[in-house]
Amino acid sequence: MAPSTPRVVVGIDVKKRPWEQLVPLHNRWHPDIPPVADVKEGELVRVEMVDWTGGRVGDNNSAEDIKSLDLTITHYLSGPLRVLDTDGKPAQPGDLLAVEICNLGPLPGDEWGYTGTFDRENGGGFLTDHFPCATKAIWYFEGIYAYSPNIPGVRFPGLTHPGIIGTAPSHDLLNIWNERERKLAETDTGSLKLCEVVYQRPLASMPTPKNCLLGKIKEGSPEWQKMANEAARTIPGRENGGNCDIKNLSRGSKVYLPVFVEGANLSTGDMHFSQGDGEVSFCGAIEMSGFLELKCEVIRGGMKEYLTPMGPTPLHVNPIFEIGPVEPRFSEWLVFEGISVDEAGQQHYLDATVAYKRAVLNAIDYLSSFGYSKEQAYILLSCCPCEGRISGIVDSPNAVATLAIPTAIFDQDIRPKTGKVPKGPKVQRSPDVLKCTYDGKLPVTKNLGGTQT
Amino acid sequence: MAPSTPRVVVGIDVKKRPWEQLVPLHNRWHPDIPPVADVKEGELVRVEMVDWTGGRVGDNNSAEDIKSLDLTITHYLSGPLRVLDTDGKPAQPGDLLAVEICNLGPLPGDEWGYTGTFDRENGGGFLTDHFPCATKAIWYFEGIYAYSPNIPGVRFPGLTHPGIIGTAPSHDLLNIWNERERKLAETDTGSLKLCEVVYQRPLASMPTPKNCLLGKIKEGSPEWQKMANEAARTIPGRENGGNCDIKNLSRGSKVYLPVFVEGANLSTGDMHFSQGDGEVSFCGAIEMSGFLELKCEVIRGGMKEYLTPMGPTPLHVNPIFEIGPVEPRFSEWLVFEGISVDEAGQQHYLDATVAYKRAVLNAIDYLSSFGYSKEQAYILLSCCPCEGRISGIVDSPNAVATLAIPTAIFDQDIRPKTGKVPKGPKVQRSPDVLKCTYDGKLPVTKNLGGTQT
Amino acid sequence: MAPSTPRVVVGIDVKKRPWEQLVPLHNRWHPDIPPVADVKEGELVRVEMVDWTGGRVGDNNSAEDIKSLDLTITHYLSGPLRVLDTDGKPAQPGDLLAVEICNLGPLPGDEWGYTGTFDRENGGGFLTDHFPCATKAIWYFEGIYAYSPNIPGVRFPGLTHPGIIGTAPSHDLLNIWNERERKLAETDTGSLKLCEVVYQRPLASMPTPKNCLLGKIKEGSPEWQKMANEAARTIPGRENGGNCDIKNLSRGSKVYLPVFVEGANLSTGDMHFSQGDGEVSFCGAIEMSGFLELKCEVIRGGMKEYLTPMGPTPLHVNPIFEIGPVEPRFSEWLVFEGISVDEAGQQHYLDATVAYKRAVLNAIDYLSSFGYSKEQAYILLSCCPCEGRISGIVDSPNAVATLAIPTAIFDQDIRPKTGKVPKGPKVQRSPDVLKCTYDGKLPVTKNLGGTQT
Amino acid sequence: MAPSTPRVVVGIDVKKRPWEQLVPLHNRWHPDIPPVADVKEGELVRVEMVDWTGGRVGDNNSAEDIKSLDLTITHYLSGPLRVLDTDGKPAQPGDLLAVEICNLGPLPGDEWGYTGTFDRENGGGFLTDHFPCATKAIWYFEGIYAYSPNIPGVRFPGLTHPGIIGTAPSHDLLNIWNERERKLAETDTGSLKLCEVVYQRPLASMPTPKNCLLGKIKEGSPEWQKMANEAARTIPGRENGGNCDIKNLSRGSKVYLPVFVEGANLSTGDMHFSQGDGEVSFCGAIEMSGFLELKCEVIRGGMKEYLTPMGPTPLHVNPIFEIGPVEPRFSEWLVFEGISVDEAGQQHYLDATVAYKRAVLNAIDYLSSFGYSKEQAYILLSCCPCEGRISGIVDSPNAVATLAIPTAIFDQDIRPKTGKVPKGPKVQRSPDVLKCTYDGKLPVTKNLGGTQT
Repeated sequence: MAPSTPRVVVGIDVKKRPWEQLVPLHNRWHPDIPPVADVKEGELVRVEMVDWTGGRVGDNNSAEDIKSLDLTITHYLSGPLRVLDTDGKPAQPGDLLAVEICNLGPLPGDEWGYTGTFDRENGGGFLTDHFPCATKAIWYFEGIYAYSPNIPGVRFPGLTHPGIIGTAPSHDLLNIWNERERKLAETDTGSLKLCEVVYQRPLASMPTPKNCLLGKIKEGSPEWQKMANEAARTIPGRENGGNCDIKNLSRGSKVYLPVFVEGANLSTGDMHFSQGDGEVSFCGAIEMSGFLELKCEVIRGGMKEYLTPMGPTPLHVNPIFEIGPVEPRFSEWLVFEGISVDEAGQQHYLDATVAYKRAVLNAIDYLSSFGYSKEQAYILLSCCPCEGRISGIVDSPNAVATLAIPTAIFDQDIRPKTGKVPKGPKVQRSPDVLKCTYDGKLPVTKNLGGTQT
Repeated sequence: MAPSTPRVVVGIDVKKRPWEQLVPLHNRWHPDIPPVADVKEGELVRVEMVDWTGGRVGDNNSAEDIKSLDLTITHYLSGPLRVLDTDGKPAQPGDLLAVEICNLGPLPGDEWGYTGTFDRENGGGFLTDHFPCATKAIWYFEGIYAYSPNIPGVRFPGLTHPGIIGTAPSHDLLNIWNERERKLAETDTGSLKLCEVVYQRPLASMPTPKNCLLGKIKEGSPEWQKMANEAARTIPGRENGGNCDIKNLSRGSKVYLPVFVEGANLSTGDMHFSQGDGEVSFCGAIEMSGFLELKCEVIRGGMKEYLTPMGPTPLHVNPIFEIGPVEPRFSEWLVFEGISVDEAGQQHYLDATVAYKRAVLNAIDYLSSFGYSKEQAYILLSCCPCEGRISGIVDSPNAVATLAIPTAIFDQDIRPKTGKVPKGPKVQRSPDVLKCTYDGKLPVTKNLGGTQT
Repeated sequence: MAPSTPRVVVGIDVKKRPWEQLVPLHNRWHPDIPPVADVKEGELVRVEMVDWTGGRVGDNNSAEDIKSLDLTITHYLSGPLRVLDTDGKPAQPGDLLAVEICNLGPLPGDEWGYTGTFDRENGGGFLTDHFPCATKAIWYFEGIYAYSPNIPGVRFPGLTHPGIIGTAPSHDLLNIWNERERKLAETDTGSLKLCEVVYQRPLASMPTPKNCLLGKIKEGSPEWQKMANEAARTIPGRENGGNCDIKNLSRGSKVYLPVFVEGANLSTGDMHFSQGDGEVSFCGAIEMSGFLELKCEVIRGGMKEYLTPMGPTPLHVNPIFEIGPVEPRFSEWLVFEGISVDEAGQQHYLDATVAYKRAVLNAIDYLSSFGYSKEQAYILLSCCPCEGRISGIVDSPNAVATLAIPTAIFDQDIRPKTGKVPKGPKVQRSPDVLKCTYDGKLPVTKNLGGTQT
Repeated sequence: MAPSTPRVVVGIDVKKRPWEQLVPLHNRWHPDIPPVADVKEGELVRVEMVDWTGGRVGDNNSAEDIKSLDLTITHYLSGPLRVLDTDGKPAQPGDLLAVEICNLGPLPGDEWGYTGTFDRENGGGFLTDHFPCATKAIWYFEGIYAYSPNIPGVRFPGLTHPGIIGTAPSHDLLNIWNERERKLAETDTGSLKLCEVVYQRPLASMPTPKNCLLGKIKEGSPEWQKMANEAARTIPGRENGGNCDIKNLSRGSKVYLPVFVEGANLSTGDMHFSQGDGEVSFCGAIEMSGFLELKCEVIRGGMKEYLTPMGPTPLHVNPIFEIGPVEPRFSEWLVFEGISVDEAGQQHYLDATVAYKRAVLNAIDYLSSFGYSKEQAYILLSCCPCEGRISGIVDSPNAVATLAIPTAIFDQDIRPKTGKVPKGPKVQRSPDVLKCTYDGKLPVTKNLGGTQT
């Protein structure tokens, strides 16, 4: 007999708000968020999810919703799922949970997405010191392809993947997170070298009851009060997987997640139609609601067998991923390089972050000479299937990072050419991305050497 | 009429030492190193090159040559080539030099290579605080494949590429380099956050007359004296290209290099049979002698047209690369993740270098449970066609970096499995890499949480 | 505003029989089958379809349904769709209809498929003289992967595609088809060289009112009587596209179909989860019900512009296809060769059909030495993503055809090896495919040289 | 110690004629042609080879050399090599000889090639009834790329491979070949269905002493007399491999050849810079001289273990191939389809040869509307990396064959488009291929339905 159609363990009604959904969502990591369903090893289940903001960003003509987005409400996650083996025994701390991503896609009736850059005073992005304004591009889908009314002239196949997939942390692990992040958050930013070039405030987002959703735990209850004050925010990827934003995690992939609590308590969310390595604009994938059909396997004792802790405790591990065999196939790539010298000309030491920043800036300026606005290029490089590589990390003092762009996504030939062949349209590609004003007073990084604006 | 066989503009006699070659080599960047040949736009020329150490590392059973290698003698470069357009006019500052990599490979009679890690007190490597000893693996070639007597059980197709390709800097650019690197070299290392985790001494390698080779400029002459004191070392990639170590720069690729001096003065060297993204062990590609057949095009005024300076002067640019359509095709990849939390458990802020370090450490430990020594794994991940990605660079405070390894290079299935299927041989893969003692006193980074040794 | 969710123009209720569906299906090609819906250029529509037999083959433990299948009832098609341009004017004869395949897959609630070989006296298959029995394998899906309880040890990603997509023929074209096929059907099979090696009866399937379904045309009506006697059967691919079984026609592909009647009258059906080049076992893909989301463009006058008739009339054209950029990526392929010498040792003249037959036979026997039954191998090579190539078609007297199998679909290494490494399990892979008796009296082709049975 | 540089076992002096080479060549298959060298299992050896005509086709401005080429002189092969195992014992009949293709390419000093179509009365080609004239195109190489002064506007990476690689037949096998081919050659061509559409005379090329070269066997000696009358011609691929023209047999591939005589007696020749599936124009690859570096393994008893005879004797086997992991990567393909209906509109029965003929004709006419002459298109489709597939071979009466062309090889977008976007240059791409007159009287096949000439 055929296996039955995937059982829907978390269903989403796209016409309802996140907090009105039948199965309650959550937006924090905590060991005590109660599972919403049991899932058996080998069973194919379907998890539906709202977009990471829960519908706060609209398919409209303004970026104001991006500008004013309250980041304490994100990301809405579906789950947790309690995973049982074929005998009905739950996964145990120390096991490895293998999750196969069988199928995924947009939710029927909601086939669109968006990419944005946050305002410098509210979230920012990798290049926020250059691009302090909130912007937004809308994307529509045609099967495997996405196109945007705000970035005319590009169309690309998406490599759809969940931005977030992870297991619940144990209390011990949660404490480790909160302690190390609080320590960083309390650091004087002036003392942090990286802040000179990629500073965004705050350095880390600490637990807060504000907008905290904990699934079945009733808001305002004593239990909620306690948990909300310690539950980890969802922004960074951590030992439990979480917001790892690995763009190749699409159909046919497998994720091997460490199990920290009984039942594993798997949650997922933040579906991306497509994303570039780095997700540079922060709200940077093509964000959408979606469904994920998955299958779990419990590898008993797998953490010890397969993961070596890298840190002071046995909990300092990272998930492993196995990438599926189906990907868009691109023939040509144009590659931009960055070295760890910043815009002020200062030499940094083997700093891949600085090098990647420069590679992305180089690519944006390059594309802008083909008729795209810099904001269009910034958003495009955040969400198209471009590859960000650490090419050299040993040749002191320069780290070399590269950003490779598949040339087939453009409707013109963007390669450099000798004088005989004219360069592309050289016209503003309009309409442009949606754009807000920046009302703050932080200085914008000037590119003194550049002649183009 | 068929174009003639590539004209050999720099020939190498593999039986002679670097300084005995007919066409003199150089191991520094300087505008005044005289060209050794003129090359016309469109002409197919062949440049041969010694390995980066000029034969100081041998196909033998000891890593002592790696341990004692004097880094002031590297890298031996072939060139400079003075590039003329079809009318015989030399390339001019402000032009873009498009170099097509038509063919390349090992030098006949010298078909072998090596990969090493330097001693912590003499060069080090990305993980030198974990692996302070000098080690070496020898590689032999069979067509597109490489295999090593020191790492039994792996074999992979190489993506051969020149580690170094670049144009000569102008005096102005040279001054910029020397100034910014000197400033870094003089920094108190204690104040550098990154040094906590990837510190190698010195922070930057400054100009030195020691072992300085300047091509046709006679050693010891007044001209040599002056140039040797200001000529830039070749280790880092910079605005002129140089040691960019982009592993995909193989047959059919194009490099678009900025021109800073009349004639462009193109040099190349440091041929790699294969390299992983990052070249983590520093002497980290499969290093070899080789030949490169290339063709130049001069894009007049191309710097202004295609490169935006990113820094305080118009010289702060980076080359662009176009990757060729021929690459090994791998079906499955196993991916290791790292986040910007270091081995001591300390939280760093969006630091891709720290994240990549952890990803590589994770991969090494993982592979070591399949019978490889950690030193074998370290060297393997430095030179096999693995991909290092910046997956997430905005989810503060964690940068997420990933290292993807093609599983087909192993003679066993290295994927995690449920208990039923036994894991691989779990035996020491012997013989091991060649290994020296570490005689220094710097502390080794301990991985406290790890139970495996 | 986001484009709305694909409009369902043909919906299927998987619990109902083909003739009970709300929108009537058809199983013949005829210009006068009335359209069931209008579709506008650029509009994203969804067409659902039953499997080609309309549910006559079951997910059960017997191949009797394959053995007794009445081929006059197939293939059930969904449509025709009348295509209008953006001004509402229908496509005209002489236009080219570009159909983009945006999305496709199994129907929810019906996620399984089957592959069969027909009985020699009822349909047969490419190797029916070797394999006269009806057999069946059931396939289940896990996202992109298919596996079969009847062929243990294989699992592969499918490249899902519609087996049939085509426009309605004009009356003139229909006459051409009927005339040329009738002429062949009436040929004395003894005079046909190919029949010696691949004979299946009948040579062509002529129009018959038996089981004829003509959509909205009421069965038994005078109109139906007339049309049923001349409507073309759906088995062969023809000038209108139809059953072309091009396995790479998956997501992101485009089909350029000639338009022969006003409105184009596009029909589709016969969804395949996966298929090998050639679909050798006849019921040979992984057959299933499914949905297809598509978008049409009308290229006015495109037939003349883009298609050259190849035959006595302007109607003798063939469609063009554009393959999408997303496909499974395989690293290694094992390739079997056949030449145009048949099993009796007779030399044929540049006959690619004979050569391909021998290549497939070679592959089947090879796989059978790894523990698969020959019937398992036959079915596998019919539906897995293997590639059938015409390698040499000029070196008289031998055509050379090759069959390339991706090695990654097996759970063992199937490559030839020197004695040291043991060959695979060499056990019968059980359970086997479901199998019927062959009750006819036609002789089976013996492979006299072969020692394996 | 590094393995030494490949030992040259057959060297070619490109300035000498084939019969003047130091190591004598041969152009027939015969068991008694004496080996020219011993090769040990595991040893890397280099075999150089002249182009298949031995320099009779020149890099000049005329196709007369193609028109008048005497086919009895081809193909010049290098070898035979006698293969010994590591103990020095020769390969034995019944073994399988695994040959790894380690490296290959053009001979230095001879980096050019040609593609031609033969005159209908002297060799012909797959479409000789449409294209009876001899034509020629010259190709020059730039690393992995080829371009032709005779077909402006295309450039593609080659997948270089030996057209011929094979072992010596035994006397028994030779007899089988001669008998079956003689039987065909003596057939009345009128009785052969295929001849209606692809007839080329003679049906098979029988042994002839004319221009017979047997390596070390002295021409005119009694031994030579006897052997020359029975030695098989090299045109068709057969049980020993031979002229199999498998275009993907490039670097990193392996060929598993049956061994019929002691020592295996491996020969190779006919190097192709690039070829399309089918090599349709007969002199149809980019033909060149070249070198092949290879390594042998002897799989003792491998014929029985891995090859099932398919025919009346145990000698009726075919080689197996394993394709290497390095190939050009193309993003988009345009696919042309053919069905088994010929140009006269006649229906053939599941005839893949007829179907492929129509697919190629369709593609040629299509390309001709983008400014290429039909002769340019014919030659291009013979030698560029296009794929010929047997898509459907069971849907009686139509076989469906497809020809897929990578669109990236053209300097214009060759995809069909709606009226708004203009089609390509629509100008004669000049200069054209070199062309001779056809002086015979055989009728040319007219395409009655086609309006384009």
